[in-house]
Amino acid sequence: MREFDENSITEAVLSRVRDATDPRMRAISEALVRHLHAFIREVRPTQAEWEAGIRFLTATGQKCDDKRQEFILLSDTLGVSTLVDSINNPVSGDVTETTVFGPFYVPPPAFDHGADIGGAIEGTPMFVSGCVRRASGAPAAGATVDVWHSDEAGFYDVQQLEKTGGLAGRGRFTADGEGRFHFWTRRPAAYPIPTDGPVGDMLAAQGRHPWRPEHVHFMILADGCRPLVTHLFAQGDEYLDSDVVFGVKESLVRPFVLHQAGAAPDGTLATGEWISLDHEFVLDDSGQH
Amino acid sequence: MREFDENSITEAVLSRVRDATDPRMRAISEALVRHLHAFIREVRPTQAEWEAGIRFLTATGQKCDDKRQEFILLSDTLGVSTLVDSINNPVSGDVTETTVFGPFYVPPPAFDHGADIGGAIEGTPMFVSGCVRRASGAPAAGATVDVWHSDEAGFYDVQQLEKTGGLAGRGRFTADGEGRFHFWTRRPAAYPIPTDGPVGDMLAAQGRHPWRPEHVHFMILADGCRPLVTHLFAQGDEYLDSDVVFGVKESLVRPFVLHQAGAAPDGTLATGEWISLDHEFVLDDSGQH
Repeated sequence: MREFDENSITEAVLSRVRDATDPRMRAISEALVRHLHAFIREVRPTQAEWEAGIRFLTATGQKCDDKRQEFILLSDTLGVSTLVDSINNPVSGDVTETTVFGPFYVPPPAFDHGADIGGAIEGTPMFVSGCVRRASGAPAAGATVDVWHSDEAGFYDVQQLEKTGGLAGRGRFTADGEGRFHFWTRRPAAYPIPTDGPVGDMLAAQGRHPWRPEHVHFMILADGCRPLVTHLFAQGDEYLDSDVVFGVKESLVRPFVLHQAGAAPDGTLATGEWISLDHEFVLDDSGQH
Repeated sequence: MREFDENSITEAVLSRVRDATDPRMRAISEALVRHLHAFIREVRPTQAEWEAGIRFLTATGQKCDDKRQEFILLSDTLGVSTLVDSINNPVSGDVTETTVFGPFYVPPPAFDHGADIGGAIEGTPMFVSGCVRRASGAPAAGATVDVWHSDEAGFYDVQQLEKTGGLAGRGRFTADGEGRFHFWTRRPAAYPIPTDGPVGDMLAAQGRHPWRPEHVHFMILADGCRPLVTHLFAQGDEYLDSDVVFGVKESLVRPFVLHQAGAAPDGTLATGEWISLDHEFVLDDSGQH
């Protein structure tokens, strides 16, 4: 085959990917070609616009390193991450809703219950407690609870290791026999996603702000349950309705309760203001996902 | 807005990009979101497949440097480059047809007519001659003719600078008063595009070979004319009907004529076999593109 024009090229590429050994690879390749070509045929890019697209994608890949994942930011800001999350985690009874994973996860160090995971992070002390249960009723004893969050200026440890001197504001807990866990840390903050790369340029060109509402990330794994990747968002945050990555769900918005100096639930005596956050997490153990 | 599901997320993202200042940026963003989400909704990727996609795009960007452009290879092998070329260069009368630019162009050094641009490249001597005229009839006197091609093993100079010791197999000529140019070089070869990156992995997974038929690249610019980016392909090449980047057009397939030792058209006495290639290039000076 030769002599392709703007209509025949699509069928030509489709016929070329039909020899893929793996049927899933073939299906994804065919769908990619059809939708990508339909996009190009609709926008009819000039040669200069095509070159700008190549430069944008190249710069996005080159902005990535072991601490920065610009393509996840792109997926997040174009709503693709939320779409993929919705497809894979349909709402089911009282199972805790999921949201985007984000680009800042790294496997966290393990801590005992009651530990302070804040490390070198400064700010208002925050007491976080929770319990994990299965949708069928039983506590998820021994569930692995990974948590991570920003500091009060909105930065994660991995964005400023020279300042935090290592991981801080992240930890792994093992739920007790009743599915419970609790720990101390410092209150995070709303923050703009990193804007010093191609995704920041894209947001500016699209007339969008780069902010996410204040939140704490959780990833909870338990035997026989669908993994839960979610956040808890701070009630009242001004960005709840315009999260740049489309991650907010009403059921995940929780009070970040302000307390004056005094005794915390674990007996700690707080000498100044502190925050408490509590939530029950329900895992899908239906085996249907 | 919050609480997006797999159907409402698309409208949410579309409403977010509607504040783009530049109407073209807005139109491209909207089309990208619609087509990208339609692709995701059709293939319903698992979380692991989404992660594989992120890794593929990241690796594609990170494979790029000043000598390698993996995203252009991706665009080429998915037929996007040919589609964009077709949109921007509709067939028009006897105007020379265009084809893909490819990833191996660098601005070439200027040479006088009759020069040998082969440099350190070995192989069969090739005499290339051509003339450039405007579709309206007049010779394109003073046209800039950039040419580039692989060596007999299928590699470009920029892929093996340690071997070629600098640019080789590429040059810039200024067409004379009759629009003519000629030069010596070495015969190129059919070659596989670089397969040591993500695009090579993709081709293997799609069950495709990575070969391009033997060709010489041309980019020709003249005042008042649409720029011409094209190749001349070697008649009889076994890959003319399966070019991995979908670049072949019948009108660009030309005889690479084999000659025995003797006098060449410019008076040079060839001491062994040599090849000649001649073509008339017609530029669009209609002002309509």
